[in-house]
Amino acid sequence: MRAAGVSRRRFFSLAGAGTAGVLAAGAAGGAVGRVTAGEPATSAAAVPFATEAVPFTGGHQAGIVTPAQDRLHFVAFDVTTGDRAELAGMLQTWTAAARRMTAGQDAGDTGAVDGDPDAVPDDTGEALGLPPSRLTLTVGFGPTLFTTADGTDRFGLAGRRPAPLAELPAFPGDALDPATSGGDLCVQACADDPQVAVHAIRNLVRLGAGVVRIRWSQLGFGRTSSTSGAQATPRNLFGFKDGTANLKSENSAAIERFVWVGADDPGADWLAGGSYLVTRRIRMMLEPWDASTLAEQEATIGRTKGTGAPLGQRAEFDPADFSVRTGRRPAIPETSHLFLAHPTNSGTAILRRGYSFVDGTDGAGRLDAGLFFIAYQRDPETGFTQVQRNLRLDAMNEYIRHTSSAVFACPPGVTGPGDWWGRALFS
Amino acid sequence: MRAAGVSRRRFFSLAGAGTAGVLAAGAAGGAVGRVTAGEPATSAAAVPFATEAVPFTGGHQAGIVTPAQDRLHFVAFDVTTGDRAELAGMLQTWTAAARRMTAGQDAGDTGAVDGDPDAVPDDTGEALGLPPSRLTLTVGFGPTLFTTADGTDRFGLAGRRPAPLAELPAFPGDALDPATSGGDLCVQACADDPQVAVHAIRNLVRLGAGVVRIRWSQLGFGRTSSTSGAQATPRNLFGFKDGTANLKSENSAAIERFVWVGADDPGADWLAGGSYLVTRRIRMMLEPWDASTLAEQEATIGRTKGTGAPLGQRAEFDPADFSVRTGRRPAIPETSHLFLAHPTNSGTAILRRGYSFVDGTDGAGRLDAGLFFIAYQRDPETGFTQVQRNLRLDAMNEYIRHTSSAVFACPPGVTGPGDWWGRALFS
Repeated sequence: MRAAGVSRRRFFSLAGAGTAGVLAAGAAGGAVGRVTAGEPATSAAAVPFATEAVPFTGGHQAGIVTPAQDRLHFVAFDVTTGDRAELAGMLQTWTAAARRMTAGQDAGDTGAVDGDPDAVPDDTGEALGLPPSRLTLTVGFGPTLFTTADGTDRFGLAGRRPAPLAELPAFPGDALDPATSGGDLCVQACADDPQVAVHAIRNLVRLGAGVVRIRWSQLGFGRTSSTSGAQATPRNLFGFKDGTANLKSENSAAIERFVWVGADDPGADWLAGGSYLVTRRIRMMLEPWDASTLAEQEATIGRTKGTGAPLGQRAEFDPADFSVRTGRRPAIPETSHLFLAHPTNSGTAILRRGYSFVDGTDGAGRLDAGLFFIAYQRDPETGFTQVQRNLRLDAMNEYIRHTSSAVFACPPGVTGPGDWWGRALFS
Repeated sequence: MRAAGVSRRRFFSLAGAGTAGVLAAGAAGGAVGRVTAGEPATSAAAVPFATEAVPFTGGHQAGIVTPAQDRLHFVAFDVTTGDRAELAGMLQTWTAAARRMTAGQDAGDTGAVDGDPDAVPDDTGEALGLPPSRLTLTVGFGPTLFTTADGTDRFGLAGRRPAPLAELPAFPGDALDPATSGGDLCVQACADDPQVAVHAIRNLVRLGAGVVRIRWSQLGFGRTSSTSGAQATPRNLFGFKDGTANLKSENSAAIERFVWVGADDPGADWLAGGSYLVTRRIRMMLEPWDASTLAEQEATIGRTKGTGAPLGQRAEFDPADFSVRTGRRPAIPETSHLFLAHPTNSGTAILRRGYSFVDGTDGAGRLDAGLFFIAYQRDPETGFTQVQRNLRLDAMNEYIRHTSSAVFACPPGVTGPGDWWGRALFS
């Protein structure tokens, strides 16, 4: 029962073989899908479950431009220690565990069942036997890690806070719950198997005991954006394709311009190659939406519900043409979400990476469901904030409510074996 | 954009082809998996995502002995109408929608995008392009549908309530929240794609507007039981294999004896071939569990964490032998969950079909996580209640808390085209 594990080399060789099998199935399974209203019979979304490992190290953190996995567990932490060395030590422990877990291994050397029976296992065990499942773990630092609201410099980091890492402004219609907003640290776990994402977060929580404590956490069951041109566009809980016009990882010029913090940007000494993360928990009011006509829904979104084409066009990826008219009116209404969020009209672009959620009921007989919005950008002010300001007259606002908000600076990727999350910040 | 859909015949032919591909991948992907401590490298859990349809009609409802799917959306409803015909009409509407959705079709004839643009779509659309994903929808009737607490016969059904359909007794340690317990009706949606399960519940909610309203709802991200010998045993959030000794659908004699309501049982005129469903939301206290030693964990469960073998045995499916001793003590402690829940000691058996959940945080810095326990049995008194009474001294009680409870009578399966959920009860 406590036999030695298979070597890492053998592990990866097995994983490689498995991946090929799954991808082949993806192609076969792609021919399946409910077929309605011009929807093509092929849909890569049909078999989203992949087993391989995503490399943990690199110039950027994984989990940002990585093709969006299907499941999310996101957690924001409060730091409870006042000791900078303790916090830095935990980040080193977390990095070591993240290296192992993203490779499909246990969180610690001795695992859940290999160690001394009289010791506490250094892995919780629920992912035993499961492959890496494209797990990525992405860390971010919130504004309050640098300076508390009353100006206290908690960890000697106040001077290192880049100006763009600031609380977001209030937006009209915000219904934010402070208890499930903000946070000193965050970890985004994405994977194609939710058990693998939950296992990773739970083990980081365990390893952070006494240093951090969970502030809030959010599960997402289905991705609502593509971050690669190779992915089929998923549908959100409004039933529409979401993320068609998202930034795609293949468009490296746009990713450099809009996502990564540059060498001349504020905080570049520790943040160059990183990105700012904005999260918004967006409750969707499904009942009024479900009671609206197809025409109303399409006018709200600015796309057809079937193909996802911009109104006035034929196919999903046809460019939006705001000059096309239907009778005397623009085909794409100027209050539609597409019109207002489009780079042409917002003047900017963000990388969206959100997930659908259902968190039980709201106490009033309705599903507490919606979109956990995640966006990465080079600067929150010229990214999310600029887009969101432009959505002030968005027809969609009638059907949504922002209930949680947070912003984090995500450092660049971990490189060599001695590197760790935040090393440049804490050194 | 509003082209005619593919015929049902063609649809099933496509689905069959896709299924074969996925099953082949399952075999290939089975070679992948983190390998630790005698855990075999093969794990059917590695690629759980299947695309085919599960037949909706039959002598029993699907979703009971059906090999447990990977994801759950469960919802309990209060009936808000006082009109029996309205309620029966909704059940007919639900049945028609369930027939369609479990086959991978839209909830209604015109779908999300095929109908009149100026009409409200009769499907919400978020499952467009997704295959059936082994969706099952299973309906149940709660005791309060028959008689309210003050004895009111709401729908003329009081005389039809079988005696076993009664509120469960209180158990020591219960911490039940009445707002998320009970319910007049329930629907269990299981699928290998959570989006498909959520879509089905959401459309039944929509179709039930004005007749029912959601009382509570629960998502489960990972199955914690096998209901077929062909399934690999999954792990629960304690990191242990769960459901090894569960009733399996292949054991038809035990299923007949312990799961299905028989022709001579109470309420057989409408319930024969059905089953009683008990749900318990069981919060797991992960922090103390994660701080306990491997030996403590194994003594609590009664199995090894690695292989899942009963203590004193070598392999997962070796029978538990309560006479084996380790030194002077029984290898399987008499306070272990295995000892107390085992049919030998509880004198009965139930079909478990539970799911792991993480519902954010509990406001005290801990994950609100655990097991949404689902059991099917021929009689709750000789099923769940008898097992649960026997668990009074279970060492596991230190680590769990029951926060929600419900019981429902699930009618037999829908048969011919004119049949509907509850027809025999309402006729």
